[in-house]
Amino acid sequence: MRAMLVDRNRNLVWSEVAPPALKARDVLIEVHAVALNRADLLQRAGQYPSPEGWPEWMGLEVSGVVCTAPPGGRWKPGDRVCALLGGGGYAQRVAVPENLVLPIPRGLSMEEAAALPEAFATSYLNLCLEGGMKAQDTVLIQAGASGLGMAAIQLAKAWGAKVLTTVSSPDKADFVRRLGADVVINRKTERLADAMDAHPVDLALDCVAGAELGACVEKMAPRGRWIVIATLAGPKSEIDLNVFFRKGLRLIGSTLRSRSEAEKAAILAALEEKLWDKFSAGELKAIVHSTLPMAAAEEAHAILKRQENLGKVVLTLGH
Amino acid sequence: MRAMLVDRNRNLVWSEVAPPALKARDVLIEVHAVALNRADLLQRAGQYPSPEGWPEWMGLEVSGVVCTAPPGGRWKPGDRVCALLGGGGYAQRVAVPENLVLPIPRGLSMEEAAALPEAFATSYLNLCLEGGMKAQDTVLIQAGASGLGMAAIQLAKAWGAKVLTTVSSPDKADFVRRLGADVVINRKTERLADAMDAHPVDLALDCVAGAELGACVEKMAPRGRWIVIATLAGPKSEIDLNVFFRKGLRLIGSTLRSRSEAEKAAILAALEEKLWDKFSAGELKAIVHSTLPMAAAEEAHAILKRQENLGKVVLTLGH
Repeated sequence: MRAMLVDRNRNLVWSEVAPPALKARDVLIEVHAVALNRADLLQRAGQYPSPEGWPEWMGLEVSGVVCTAPPGGRWKPGDRVCALLGGGGYAQRVAVPENLVLPIPRGLSMEEAAALPEAFATSYLNLCLEGGMKAQDTVLIQAGASGLGMAAIQLAKAWGAKVLTTVSSPDKADFVRRLGADVVINRKTERLADAMDAHPVDLALDCVAGAELGACVEKMAPRGRWIVIATLAGPKSEIDLNVFFRKGLRLIGSTLRSRSEAEKAAILAALEEKLWDKFSAGELKAIVHSTLPMAAAEEAHAILKRQENLGKVVLTLGH
Repeated sequence: MRAMLVDRNRNLVWSEVAPPALKARDVLIEVHAVALNRADLLQRAGQYPSPEGWPEWMGLEVSGVVCTAPPGGRWKPGDRVCALLGGGGYAQRVAVPENLVLPIPRGLSMEEAAALPEAFATSYLNLCLEGGMKAQDTVLIQAGASGLGMAAIQLAKAWGAKVLTTVSSPDKADFVRRLGADVVINRKTERLADAMDAHPVDLALDCVAGAELGACVEKMAPRGRWIVIATLAGPKSEIDLNVFFRKGLRLIGSTLRSRSEAEKAAILAALEEKLWDKFSAGELKAIVHSTLPMAAAEEAHAILKRQENLGKVVLTLGH
């Protein structure tokens, strides 16, 4: 079997590797598409290794066809599925615990299905479980045109929330408005903290952080929750704890990848129950910015690095 | 009726004021004892006014005797009670919604009973409700010898937690050890962040904050919760958000005083159900450092200001 390894110069090399070792309740999936995440770039740079028990190579979400499945379970060979991985999606095949596998929503392509698990599971985990999102909440989504932003905006709108979001260009502003965003802030021309004066936020999903975080956190509505899941603009910020405690604010750090299998399985079950029919009905969309073959993985990473994408970037494998 | 007003020079003046206006479900209490809180010092300095609907003068918790009570309710004239107030305890009488009143635990004096509501409600709200304290958690209580620390240490030990606490003198270290603290850190001779290396904290109750907060927060155990309820050492601190999100940490700001009556009533009901019998049995103690007459309120404030107290300071009124 082949997988995309990273050599000592951080180059991508499509290499022969040992076939996946199946654990007791694992499904073996023939990978048809793998969607990219910014975590892939960090992992490639050596900063975010796969957790224990997962292949060393990149790839947090795939779609494909079941090759083998554990007896008496939900899956059988030939099933079209997508899956959430701790790593290992950049490969011809991957072994996944059966409860981290979901059916592809009716009507979606392999490319679209690969783009669902990580972005929607991250959105659901953080907005709904960590953040307790309710209808009428004002929700801030940082980097609204990213793969995650695409999912989070749609989820928040489906919950009945008002959505503020940040973008870095007029094209991205148009994109997030089509997704339903109510207030769009172009970070190149506006300060987020200023925009928050008119829109006190109940809940924020933040992959940006940076020095400005403190000034934004204190603009939240009383009992506001600010969830940090990455720090693209840098890790350090000063917080005014007087405002913080008097308003009863919460700063919540969260990752999906480090969660237990049971937690991830519960999140996926919730996605299937609450969202999968909405994809089939066209109310929610898996928006793929570009699809490239695995051989063009370098170019796919470059799109993400340049932050050109509106939605997800997907790599496909022929079989 | 008389109450302790603060004049324009911040002096305390025992003054004639209008008698309490009773709302529909209010109990009128003849105040026998009022316990002090650091919030009283802030309020006296003009920084922390009573919330809407409460008298302008200080006093967050009292004990006394019911004068009048709403018909068909739990209370009747002559009942010995204690109560949690939004303000107004430094007075001969105070009107309190009936669900913010509790019976005095069997065997406790008026002075001891006055020392219970604020400290134990704050501890229960933050450790149990906001922080989800479980047996086996390692819990940090800042300022362990304070009135709040006295309550929080006992509550955490009653829950089966391991308790780290900070103090500022050997006397206070002895005091918190007698309350059950497992690890005592003298802030004059040790850095808290250093001590946390050997004791990763699951949950912290922090009335100190200050610049050191960031360095301590990042030493927490994965999924740790750090609850800030005051900022005695200053409000600003820098947080490393990379550590924060990767460990899945939470920084939670919280105040009891600004909560709704319903939230406060639920907390008090939980205290009565879970703790009141333990006071009667002597398993929990309301530790009063000194009791002074209302005429010595100035000296009582000075004890708190100098941080001399081991436990609560209480003022009493003769009737």
